[in-house]
Amino acid sequence: MFYLYFYFVMEGKWSDVINEEMRRLGAKRSVIRELFEYGRTRKVEIGAENVFDFSLGNPAVPSPSIVTETLMRLLSDCEPTALHAYTSAPGDATVREAIASYLRRTYGADVHADCLYLTAGAAASLTVSLTAILNPDDEVILLAPYFPEYRVFVERTGAKVVSVLSDTQTFQPNFEALEAAITRKTAAIIVNSPNNPTGAVLTEENASRLAALLTRASERIGRPIYLVSDEPYRELIYDGVRVPFLTNHYRNTLVCYSFSKSLSLPGERIGYVLVSPHAENFTALYQAVCGAGRALGFVCAPSLFQYLIPSVLGVTSDLTVYDENRRLLYGALTEYGFDVVPPDGAFYLFLRAPSGDANEFCELAKRREILLVPSDDFGCAGFARLAYCVSRDQVERSLPAFCALAADCGLQPK
Amino acid sequence: MFYLYFYFVMEGKWSDVINEEMRRLGAKRSVIRELFEYGRTRKVEIGAENVFDFSLGNPAVPSPSIVTETLMRLLSDCEPTALHAYTSAPGDATVREAIASYLRRTYGADVHADCLYLTAGAAASLTVSLTAILNPDDEVILLAPYFPEYRVFVERTGAKVVSVLSDTQTFQPNFEALEAAITRKTAAIIVNSPNNPTGAVLTEENASRLAALLTRASERIGRPIYLVSDEPYRELIYDGVRVPFLTNHYRNTLVCYSFSKSLSLPGERIGYVLVSPHAENFTALYQAVCGAGRALGFVCAPSLFQYLIPSVLGVTSDLTVYDENRRLLYGALTEYGFDVVPPDGAFYLFLRAPSGDANEFCELAKRREILLVPSDDFGCAGFARLAYCVSRDQVERSLPAFCALAADCGLQPK
Repeated sequence: MFYLYFYFVMEGKWSDVINEEMRRLGAKRSVIRELFEYGRTRKVEIGAENVFDFSLGNPAVPSPSIVTETLMRLLSDCEPTALHAYTSAPGDATVREAIASYLRRTYGADVHADCLYLTAGAAASLTVSLTAILNPDDEVILLAPYFPEYRVFVERTGAKVVSVLSDTQTFQPNFEALEAAITRKTAAIIVNSPNNPTGAVLTEENASRLAALLTRASERIGRPIYLVSDEPYRELIYDGVRVPFLTNHYRNTLVCYSFSKSLSLPGERIGYVLVSPHAENFTALYQAVCGAGRALGFVCAPSLFQYLIPSVLGVTSDLTVYDENRRLLYGALTEYGFDVVPPDGAFYLFLRAPSGDANEFCELAKRREILLVPSDDFGCAGFARLAYCVSRDQVERSLPAFCALAADCGLQPK
Repeated sequence: MFYLYFYFVMEGKWSDVINEEMRRLGAKRSVIRELFEYGRTRKVEIGAENVFDFSLGNPAVPSPSIVTETLMRLLSDCEPTALHAYTSAPGDATVREAIASYLRRTYGADVHADCLYLTAGAAASLTVSLTAILNPDDEVILLAPYFPEYRVFVERTGAKVVSVLSDTQTFQPNFEALEAAITRKTAAIIVNSPNNPTGAVLTEENASRLAALLTRASERIGRPIYLVSDEPYRELIYDGVRVPFLTNHYRNTLVCYSFSKSLSLPGERIGYVLVSPHAENFTALYQAVCGAGRALGFVCAPSLFQYLIPSVLGVTSDLTVYDENRRLLYGALTEYGFDVVPPDGAFYLFLRAPSGDANEFCELAKRREILLVPSDDFGCAGFARLAYCVSRDQVERSLPAFCALAADCGLQPK
């Protein structure tokens, strides 16, 4: 009887004996992961060639050969005890100096090795930066549409998300709405350019305008508003577009970078946080970044991939594949009558749902075996994200299905 | 005037605009890191051969050759897009199945692939497990002496550390003190066997006794007490000692493992969490582990090193080097009159400070150019930790210095 009672109590109230918020996060796959798993099943059912999976930002272009060559060279030439040893927590000093030197050369940025903290990729760069900055009840502004995990990373610290919808024609910031959203609790804003999910790139003019707005607002509220710039797509740009380097515009900037997308290494988890040396209280801020990395359990970025970095700075996978996919899809979809945001960077297209209902549109697409991500989780209703980091072949095979989908939606070809 | 005021305010109160706890953590190096940096400087001053650095648990024995061979094979044979792609968040399914099969074979553990969550090393395994389990105001019992970062990982979640000193003769748990420390707020206990800093291994008998105690106490307080078993030194054992596999003893167990120490890969950050399939509310608990990994920004464990695992399960670096160091040091130090805890595993010796003052003893050692870590940060006063994962040569050269140190301390040779 005692045991029956005991088991009833024990089995019944797991929500008190583990962290319910973490369970909820683990139980609910992200919409993107959900679609990806659906695609995997569907490919087994009807053949991989008949499923047009545009759900995931997993690069289809192989890493440039220098990546494999350098890794092989490191493995054959270096002492294993040195190659695989702990580095200092912020990362190997020589590697950090190589990155700083590259950033000075390439962007004219005033950066030195001790502004850099190497991480296990962009997600880690974000959780480390946000944990360093935020206190419970702080507010963090996200410019919608935004990568859904930002909300997870912000809320885990106890801070709150304030979503500000961008101009839905250009997907540049809506400065009036942004200014109105800033309160005395605003601690940070996350900017993502080139943008996931829209492909939009913040213009140089708007970078200056954003910096001026944040400087004024920081003065008004009596605390610095940190600009957290998530830049995994920095090098993925087309038609000669330039991506503003935000530390050149605004002093209280933290850049979160990853080598995942430019070098097609998403599984390897390697990136960095750059803390602007001109940030107010730079020393305290950089220390907080180091403290956050330590408290979250990162120890150091994977050492073999740290030592790869000096050889691959400025190198990218073959971006012409993405560029060709972009042109082909943008041209065809526009021709079929879809309303597509002109894409300047990353490897995403953002399509307006013809009926205005993103979920309904993505369900219609699914019936044509096209997998698109509805925009609601990106904090912006009425669109669908198409990830074109796939093979040229998949793009070509998908076009008749898109044409049929346009007809399903009652669109008129242009 | 306004600007002066503005800058005064802005520069003056950084403690409100970043996370002060993280800054404090980042500003204060761990005592171990501090000593390591001192050693680096000292080696430049007087020559590396004259400094006897026993401060850091950085393996001096190279990885077994199969590690390099397998990495080279993966790099030359696999498609880069497959090798470096995102794996599923808990880790590649084939890799998890290989680990599960190894654990079934080796320990008779009832484990399957979906009990495993691959991580970026032991620290990540711990932060993910603790974040999954803990709520603010929970209590976590640490058996002292303990690895100092446990305190950082626990306190970051908002939970509190309750330290219970082990028997300082055997460094087995003090069961009376442990039982007395359990309250209705006790959510978890962290066990580390083989132990850092003592080298002690939990006996099979004491594992059973611990399990019985935790089962009784869970019933008494009406909630499961999770046993978090930190096992980076599992394979580093000597004289045929056996390490109990704790999921075989206690259902509510999470094993935190790392390949860092057994394969000399500390910089590469690869390990796992094993959630016992018999844990109460297993599904919710495993989901919480996945959710915590997601919220902390881990995404997936480094993919190249995931694919290494199936080829190296059960393989270790050449442990005879550590074993010889252990015998040599234990024998010599005991002969010089030091009181040393008999070491069964890991690569640490724990010496009693002759005067009872650990800091004073380590300062005396420093004057003989011997770097030892005082035990206070391990939650246990009066000892010093010696990490013998160094070259045989360093051990041999250090013996006259230890002999002189014994004389400095007024010890009588045996």
